[in-house]
Amino acid sequence: MSKKIVIVGGVAGGATAAARLRRMNEEDEIVVLEKGEYISFANCGLPYYIGGVITNRDALLVQTVEGMSKKFNLDIRNLSEATSIDREKKTITVTKVETGETYEESYDYAILSPGARPIVPPFEGLEEAENVFTLRNIPDTDQIKAWVDERKPHHAVVIGGGFIGLEMAENLAERGIHVQLVELSDQVMAPVDREMAGYLHEELQNNGVELILQDGVDAFLDRGKKVKLNSGKELVSDMTIMSIGVRPESELAKDAGLTLGERGGIVVDEHLKTSDASIYALGDAVEVKDYIQNTPTMVPLAWPANRQGRLVADHIHGKNVSYNGTLGTAVAKIFDLTVASTGNNEKTLRRLGVNYEAVHVHPASNATYYPGGAAIALKLLFDPETGQIFGAQAVGRKGVEKRIDVIATAIKGKLTVEDLPDLELSYAPPYSSAKDPVNVAGYAALNIIEGEAEIVHHHEIDDIVREGGTLIDVREPEEFESGNIVGAINIPLGALRNRLEDLPKNKPIHVHCQVGLRGYLATRILKNNGFRAINLSGGYKTYSTATK
Amino acid sequence: MSKKIVIVGGVAGGATAAARLRRMNEEDEIVVLEKGEYISFANCGLPYYIGGVITNRDALLVQTVEGMSKKFNLDIRNLSEATSIDREKKTITVTKVETGETYEESYDYAILSPGARPIVPPFEGLEEAENVFTLRNIPDTDQIKAWVDERKPHHAVVIGGGFIGLEMAENLAERGIHVQLVELSDQVMAPVDREMAGYLHEELQNNGVELILQDGVDAFLDRGKKVKLNSGKELVSDMTIMSIGVRPESELAKDAGLTLGERGGIVVDEHLKTSDASIYALGDAVEVKDYIQNTPTMVPLAWPANRQGRLVADHIHGKNVSYNGTLGTAVAKIFDLTVASTGNNEKTLRRLGVNYEAVHVHPASNATYYPGGAAIALKLLFDPETGQIFGAQAVGRKGVEKRIDVIATAIKGKLTVEDLPDLELSYAPPYSSAKDPVNVAGYAALNIIEGEAEIVHHHEIDDIVREGGTLIDVREPEEFESGNIVGAINIPLGALRNRLEDLPKNKPIHVHCQVGLRGYLATRILKNNGFRAINLSGGYKTYSTATK
Ligand SMILES: Cc1cc2nc3c(=O)[nH]c(=O)nc-3n(C[C@H](O)[C@H](O)[C@H](O)COP(=O)(O)OP(=O)(O)OC[C@H]3O[C@@H](n4cnc5c(N)ncnc54)[C@H](O)[C@@H]3O)c2cc1C
Ligand SMILES: Cc1cc2nc3c(=O)[nH]c(=O)nc-3n(C[C@H](O)[C@H](O)[C@H](O)COP(=O)(O)OP(=O)(O)OC[C@H]3O[C@@H](n4cnc5c(N)ncnc54)[C@H](O)[C@@H]3O)c2cc1C
Ligand SMILES: CC(C)(COP(=O)(O)OP(=O)(O)OC[C@H]1O[C@@H](n2cnc3c(N)ncnc32)[C@H](O)[C@@H]1OP(=O)(O)O)[C@@H](O)C(=O)NCCC(=O)NCCS
Ligand SMILES: CC(C)(COP(=O)(O)OP(=O)(O)OC[C@H]1O[C@@H](n2cnc3c(N)ncnc32)[C@H](O)[C@@H]1OP(=O)(O)O)[C@@H](O)C(=O)NCCC(=O)NCCS
Repeated sequence: MSKKIVIVGGVAGGATAAARLRRMNEEDEIVVLEKGEYISFANCGLPYYIGGVITNRDALLVQTVEGMSKKFNLDIRNLSEATSIDREKKTITVTKVETGETYEESYDYAILSPGARPIVPPFEGLEEAENVFTLRNIPDTDQIKAWVDERKPHHAVVIGGGFIGLEMAENLAERGIHVQLVELSDQVMAPVDREMAGYLHEELQNNGVELILQDGVDAFLDRGKKVKLNSGKELVSDMTIMSIGVRPESELAKDAGLTLGERGGIVVDEHLKTSDASIYALGDAVEVKDYIQNTPTMVPLAWPANRQGRLVADHIHGKNVSYNGTLGTAVAKIFDLTVASTGNNEKTLRRLGVNYEAVHVHPASNATYYPGGAAIALKLLFDPETGQIFGAQAVGRKGVEKRIDVIATAIKGKLTVEDLPDLELSYAPPYSSAKDPVNVAGYAALNIIEGEAEIVHHHEIDDIVREGGTLIDVREPEEFESGNIVGAINIPLGALRNRLEDLPKNKPIHVHCQVGLRGYLATRILKNNGFRAINLSGGYKTYSTATK
Repeated sequence: MSKKIVIVGGVAGGATAAARLRRMNEEDEIVVLEKGEYISFANCGLPYYIGGVITNRDALLVQTVEGMSKKFNLDIRNLSEATSIDREKKTITVTKVETGETYEESYDYAILSPGARPIVPPFEGLEEAENVFTLRNIPDTDQIKAWVDERKPHHAVVIGGGFIGLEMAENLAERGIHVQLVELSDQVMAPVDREMAGYLHEELQNNGVELILQDGVDAFLDRGKKVKLNSGKELVSDMTIMSIGVRPESELAKDAGLTLGERGGIVVDEHLKTSDASIYALGDAVEVKDYIQNTPTMVPLAWPANRQGRLVADHIHGKNVSYNGTLGTAVAKIFDLTVASTGNNEKTLRRLGVNYEAVHVHPASNATYYPGGAAIALKLLFDPETGQIFGAQAVGRKGVEKRIDVIATAIKGKLTVEDLPDLELSYAPPYSSAKDPVNVAGYAALNIIEGEAEIVHHHEIDDIVREGGTLIDVREPEEFESGNIVGAINIPLGALRNRLEDLPKNKPIHVHCQVGLRGYLATRILKNNGFRAINLSGGYKTYSTATK
């Protein structure tokens, strides 16, 4: 018996569900309601079109209403907003956006993939401002692009250092605009930890983006031409992008009495069913489980929306499938840098009170003797008891997302840090080293678990030295001269075996080098000579970046 | 109690074992015997130094005898060949290469990492030839480079299309030399299957390398200035590289009575112990287990040598570690292409009589609307009953090795094709798509396992059509015109629903498109309309490349 399925939202999750539904069945009536003009567009490409990296606007329209309707034999209705659901009658009220006309559409199953909208607090002066934009869809993009093309702004303010804010900062800067990026917290790119964000801060500044951290908008003055910050600072703005996050578009679900989570996400079970068995929900609008901790969370990214869209279609067609939670694997390009992460970060683990350990390593993306190799700052978070991998973060110029994808896969395979050295990854000089960076991170973590290595972290070492701890910098004198940690004594690694008598046996000796490798070698020499030796994880590089 | 450990071979496996042994213990006496002048050099970088991509010769010397001796407090003896082992006395006879002097060195443990040497059959005329080279170490490299720099050869012949042969062909071509590559089999790069090698053949030819397949050396004429092939063809050669494979350097082990495998590799247990409990062996010289099939195999690559070197050191120090077999994950750069693979290929599975299925997909490396995206030809081999992943191969211009590394990790995590769609991989337009190519390969495979899709392969379709089968090409007319499969009928996907009455219901309908995606969509339409529909896996692209 054929079914009638009504989908609310025609972009990532909705369009994917529609396509798979049709592939599963030719007879079902499939209606797609999209309140906007466009369906199935490339949300993620929008900043790059504004920046001129993508030049063809049509390329953003992955499918058109007409093309997709025909290809998948769908009843796609754009400019059609689902304004209420009568769950008892199993009907949805549709309002035609252009005319305000309404009608009822019945369903056997409804699928909600309404996404999330940019958060816009009611700042003073916002209503009068003409030059404040948010970016979600094609019309937003057209507006921003027209403003840039026609008004030729000199100064742009981007509010919020999440990935959309960062991409907009980059793309506006690439168009020659002076960008000031305002971020309430002490770092951009919340998915990574503070010391990893240091690399991003540096890259942004090196590319002319002015960073204003730990500050936020207080008000818009002069029709938006001035942005007043909480600190009292006033920024001149020819255009302002508001990108401080998104909020699930869950009013429809809420009004229909479906259960919402604390932060407003639609609550779904493992089959992506809402509290009404005939209504599924997915994508940015839903609350998901954190894959590692099983706690509720919201991850507004395209992979989950696409994955869930297909799962919903399959579940409707009787397949026993479920969604197992979201790792939050993510990547962004920040000028020449790539930043990527998967799983839990240290902030989350600390907040949840989880017992964790972290290692920082800085291996090269590929053989250092082959041109183009560049260091990857790689942070691995794990359970020091069981070796369970909690998450990883990486920043660098090459091969960054590969290592995060490998670790994301390892997590899904329930591999522990003990297995990471055993990952047999492809090697030739243009691509990696005989020990891949992921292997190296695994070795470093395993040494801790096995008690072969002891470490302290960048945020602990100053206190240790201040309280009288011994810290040896095992780098070469030139390296020491060019910047060092207050209180460190310079004994190059090569000289260490001859200087053992000079070192105190009755207290731990802290050691560091530039990236952690020589420091580790030093701790091995010391340990095997009867000292307790502790290495600064990630070395001077992590230490010095943490405050950038 | 301190031990004395003698290591034979001072490069990848040997040097790694030595370094880890010292990290484990400061007291042990560690002797490294290396018959060559250099230790710890970058074998894998040698072709690129000849090609001028790596310009600094010193960069190839990862460690020097002096530097490494000091750094790790090792007794490293270069130009010192281990010429025999007295297992009863536990001594090794060392011959000084320069003088022929010999002496005995005792050991508690011996570690053999002698590697493998290039195979050089006793071809007629080889002894008289002055311009025939093999490439294994620094002196070989110096010789070849000097020949290129000084003699300025115009014509080079490379014998053997394995990865060293391919890298040499590329690097010589990059230096402006006309290269003819001779390969006995019908394809280069044996780890991938024939249809995947087609992309490489094309790339080589597009870059001026002349391919001579299914032919081999018969003799060298005129002091090597002519290379006569089995076919009778004679090639003019100013220089010839012999790269037809390597053979384990296991004579020392054999003479000492250690067990060797059928193909001459030293047999070791899971702890890398030889048949003598005091002697370990590793690297290119040993026989390993195929990770997937558990059959004996030999994989002369740097990752296994490095991994095993560390494991041997750990096992000597009482850690309960073992080596779990080799997947053979590999990658090579062929001009602008990358080719990578992991696990078993189809040739192997067929030879072993394993029940397998293969899918070919061609997803883009990253969002097609973002500049620089390029198709990846991705082949996935799996068990159609259990979903076990046997192996994968990929060729393309971008992001190729990332997907193979992800699949290699999935295999180590015992994930099945059913899990591949669930891999949450990082996505932003410069890096991937919302469905990563690995997800897509997983979907395609899963559809087969679940009976949602039926496929035939590039090598089957001609016979099917010849025997009267129906084949529909669902591409657009322009695509059809520009090259098609004999006997195919062109019905574009968009017109298919309207043409159903024209199709026979009583026999299977074969379908193909350019890469497999539209063909799959067509089969879904047909299947859901009561036809039996079978898609050509990988579409016209795989079909047409298979004969290139
Ligand atoms: C600028 C930008 C860049 C991004 N970059 C990335 C990236 O690089 N990587 C990544 O993983 N993710 C990225 N994302 C996020 C990604 O696009 C989203 O996670 C994904 O699109 C969510 O899919 P969805 O189906 O839940 O919502 P959407 O794709 O937003 O689709 C929801 C649709 O539903 C419609 N709708 C809402 N309510 C109704 C209603 N009542 N009636 C009818 N229609 C309704 C909306 O108009 C909207 O078109 C980016 C997003 C933006 C805005
Ligand atoms: C040109 C080239 C390119 C390569 N490219 C790649 C690549 O891109 N990726 C990859 O994974 N692998 C590559 N490899 C393979 C990789 O280098 C080897 O797998 C790895 O070096 C094997 O390590 P091993 O310790 O077993 O042997 P080796 O590194 O070869 O070391 C063995 C050493 O033992 C010495 N020795 C032998 N017998 C004796 C004896 N009796 N006494 C004293 N010394 C002895 C030899 O002189 C030799 O120096 C390449 C190899 C070559 C030659
Ligand atoms: C365009 C859109 C509707 C596509 O949905 P889709 O049809 O599910 O996705 P694809 O075109 O990638 O096709 C995937 C299907 O083809 C199959 N496939 C892909 N390549 C194949 C091949 N070579 N051989 C066989 N099958 C193949 C897959 O198995 C899958 O089918 P299945 O789900 O039935 O298993 C949807 O992704 C969309 O709207 N995207 C734009 C919005 C968006 O995602 N925004 C966020 C990111 S910018
Ligand atoms: C140079 C060579 C001797 C290095 O051996 P190595 O010391 O084991 O390797 P590395 O320098 O990568 O150091 C790795 C060690 O540092 C540790 N390490 C690396 N980065 C670290 C960091 N940031 N913090 C803490 N520890 C770190 C690793 O855990 C590992 O130690 P472990 O094995 O005790 O766990 C060996 O690899 C070699 O000879 N290479 C050249 C030959 C070759 O491999 N050829 C084939 C490829 S071209």
